[in-house]
Amino acid sequence: VPAIPRVELLLTGNELMTGDTIDSNSAMLARYLLEHGIEVQRKITVGDSLEELAAELTAMTARASVVIINGGLGPTRDDLTAVAVASVASSAIEEQAAARRHVELWCAQRSLPLNAANLKQALLPAGAHLIDNSVGSAVGFAIHIGQCLVLATPGVPSELRAMLAGLMEHIGAQLGALQPHPTLRLQTFGLGESPAQQLINEHLPDWPAEVSLGFRAGAPLLEIKLAIADPAHEALQQACRRDLYALFGDHIIGEGETTLASCLVALLRERGARVTTAESCTGGLIASLLTQVPGSSSVFEAGFVSYANHIKQDVLGVAAADLARHGAVSETVVRQMAEGALRRSGATYAIAVSGIAGPDGGTPEKPAGTVWIAWGGQHSIQTTCLLWPAPRTLFQTLIAAAGLDLLRRELLGIRAVPQYCRLRRHPRG
Amino acid sequence: VPAIPRVELLLTGNELMTGDTIDSNSAMLARYLLEHGIEVQRKITVGDSLEELAAELTAMTARASVVIINGGLGPTRDDLTAVAVASVASSAIEEQAAARRHVELWCAQRSLPLNAANLKQALLPAGAHLIDNSVGSAVGFAIHIGQCLVLATPGVPSELRAMLAGLMEHIGAQLGALQPHPTLRLQTFGLGESPAQQLINEHLPDWPAEVSLGFRAGAPLLEIKLAIADPAHEALQQACRRDLYALFGDHIIGEGETTLASCLVALLRERGARVTTAESCTGGLIASLLTQVPGSSSVFEAGFVSYANHIKQDVLGVAAADLARHGAVSETVVRQMAEGALRRSGATYAIAVSGIAGPDGGTPEKPAGTVWIAWGGQHSIQTTCLLWPAPRTLFQTLIAAAGLDLLRRELLGIRAVPQYCRLRRHPRG
Repeated sequence: VPAIPRVELLLTGNELMTGDTIDSNSAMLARYLLEHGIEVQRKITVGDSLEELAAELTAMTARASVVIINGGLGPTRDDLTAVAVASVASSAIEEQAAARRHVELWCAQRSLPLNAANLKQALLPAGAHLIDNSVGSAVGFAIHIGQCLVLATPGVPSELRAMLAGLMEHIGAQLGALQPHPTLRLQTFGLGESPAQQLINEHLPDWPAEVSLGFRAGAPLLEIKLAIADPAHEALQQACRRDLYALFGDHIIGEGETTLASCLVALLRERGARVTTAESCTGGLIASLLTQVPGSSSVFEAGFVSYANHIKQDVLGVAAADLARHGAVSETVVRQMAEGALRRSGATYAIAVSGIAGPDGGTPEKPAGTVWIAWGGQHSIQTTCLLWPAPRTLFQTLIAAAGLDLLRRELLGIRAVPQYCRLRRHPRG
Repeated sequence: VPAIPRVELLLTGNELMTGDTIDSNSAMLARYLLEHGIEVQRKITVGDSLEELAAELTAMTARASVVIINGGLGPTRDDLTAVAVASVASSAIEEQAAARRHVELWCAQRSLPLNAANLKQALLPAGAHLIDNSVGSAVGFAIHIGQCLVLATPGVPSELRAMLAGLMEHIGAQLGALQPHPTLRLQTFGLGESPAQQLINEHLPDWPAEVSLGFRAGAPLLEIKLAIADPAHEALQQACRRDLYALFGDHIIGEGETTLASCLVALLRERGARVTTAESCTGGLIASLLTQVPGSSSVFEAGFVSYANHIKQDVLGVAAADLARHGAVSETVVRQMAEGALRRSGATYAIAVSGIAGPDGGTPEKPAGTVWIAWGGQHSIQTTCLLWPAPRTLFQTLIAAAGLDLLRRELLGIRAVPQYCRLRRHPRG
């Protein structure tokens, strides 16, 4: 084992080579390993070809201390990882009793018949150690090829995620004591990557070299990452964190795995309050995001998707005259949608949205991307009109996020106008 | 140049190695190349290290006919692609006049000062041919290293996309006339990958070698891909397609980019019908999936998220006595939810769902994963009870899909009971 451990990833799957699947697993692995102090030096991706897999694995195991294979553990004929590993390790392929029990149990729990395809997943290289898969039928496995530890992991992201801790046990045994790289991840909404970088450059020119700053732009959140290579620099890291909160803390939703919905559910629960939704162009997405959070039933009881005007009238009590006079995408209508949802549900707070997701339905005055949002409690409903043109589902994602964020800000008593409301304000709103 | 061209991708960037960026560029390249009949055999990803880049490039150019490098063309110090290529090609690095003009023009158009960082982007290996970048400051370039064509492309996705046609000119000159690979993609719901493979093995033992069969397991759809390397085999491909429709055609939603929601929206539109939703455990996801489809407003007017019992009563008219007697997760309640949504909305069809998403809320008789689904029109509501335990958001995804699929089957008059209803039937349902 070399002094600086060399860790390489071998990703396999025809769907990766054809571009049908975008690989997010290697990023998940790399982030997890990095937090444990392990850098990935190299990734190789090949299709479901026994020769390619075996050739890469032979070359990789000759120089790396750890190789993690992802993919190819499934039940079908083109899942070749176990066979490829066995061939490079000069091992036999054999049914492992514990793996068979896992497959049997997995099928039994789901009332699935145990077929030859499933049983193939119990065929592993002789001498391989099982790594448990708590959410899928394919077990992972660990085996040494020469000095190199080879770990085989499933390609289904949720199964890989569930296996990370099991992998670390083997990696820890191979590499010995590791220096973790403590990492803080601040989740922000409403700041672009380049404005965030610009703000930091301007206001925090003395950023310490020991704290490395990274951005990960997702939709809708931008993650800001503060990593240190040596735990001795934790005080510096905390100072940077405080600086970022001071600089744009109202855009920081939370840390770690926090999402806008999980943050809002927690805030509502703390207050013993409940929220309802009245959605037009977001079509139920806000309700869906809230109800994805475990335990959300204590803060969310009812949501209304009122696409058509007659539903806005009949179910939410929006005045027909206002619909006729101002149109569905208007301040008075979105306000009445919020009020109606509050009345109907008895909730404490409401989020209401009425806009034009496009691609069709826009007018010169209200082009696609126009949206009215209302949020707040019975006697404190606020509204804003944004113009945020984007492809349909991205628009829905961004506007649902904005609705959740605006109520989050209200609950926290944040008075600052968020960056996106300044930048995306509708010229006629 | 070998008879079968070998095309490899070399991706570079520390953000790819740390997992902060998920690589979508290689998928974009692979899909584009495949449409032009070119398979990518191998992808290698390394960080911004001159030694790693040069070592990989040396090995790749020795055996590939085309290597496409992505990333490392930016203005910063850690962008090393031009230097690495020059070193492997034994070329000098020199300012190219056309590249300098591009950078100058790009800066002038944006009123940006021309600085050393930008001018670095005009330094290219001697003998490299420029590839125009219509949307960014970094030009791409093409150069031969031995027999191998090396193409360097920018890491910003929009810039790479804008450069694809320019790349193809060089690749076409290198590889000569190319044969496109016609591919059929069948989208299925409710068949697992392993049951699908098993059915094909059993019923279609004479599957022709010329038609390669691939699976892409997503949640909730399983894509079955039929690819041929030679357009002369198109009749065989069509025969395989017909065989699959005969074998499990009721599980085939459609082809290409079809989703359950887009399929259902199209079926409803053909019939001039509308659908409404009454959702408990799926929390608005069915409504959200439907409204993600452009033009869905013509078939979807209203959805109800009735998490709490009093909402089921007040908004949907479910009888309090039935809620008390049978519980919210029961046949009579889910049926009344569907009826109430139909009444409230005036829609032709309804999908209603009441279940226990978990992780909490289950009982021994109705554990997490228990769900009643109702679907159909005013006088033809059907119901089923499934037991489909899965992590919360996956459960919601699967049950929303099942609801959409059951109505799809109803609209198409499919009488066969889907595989998932047979396998997941609740023992007490």
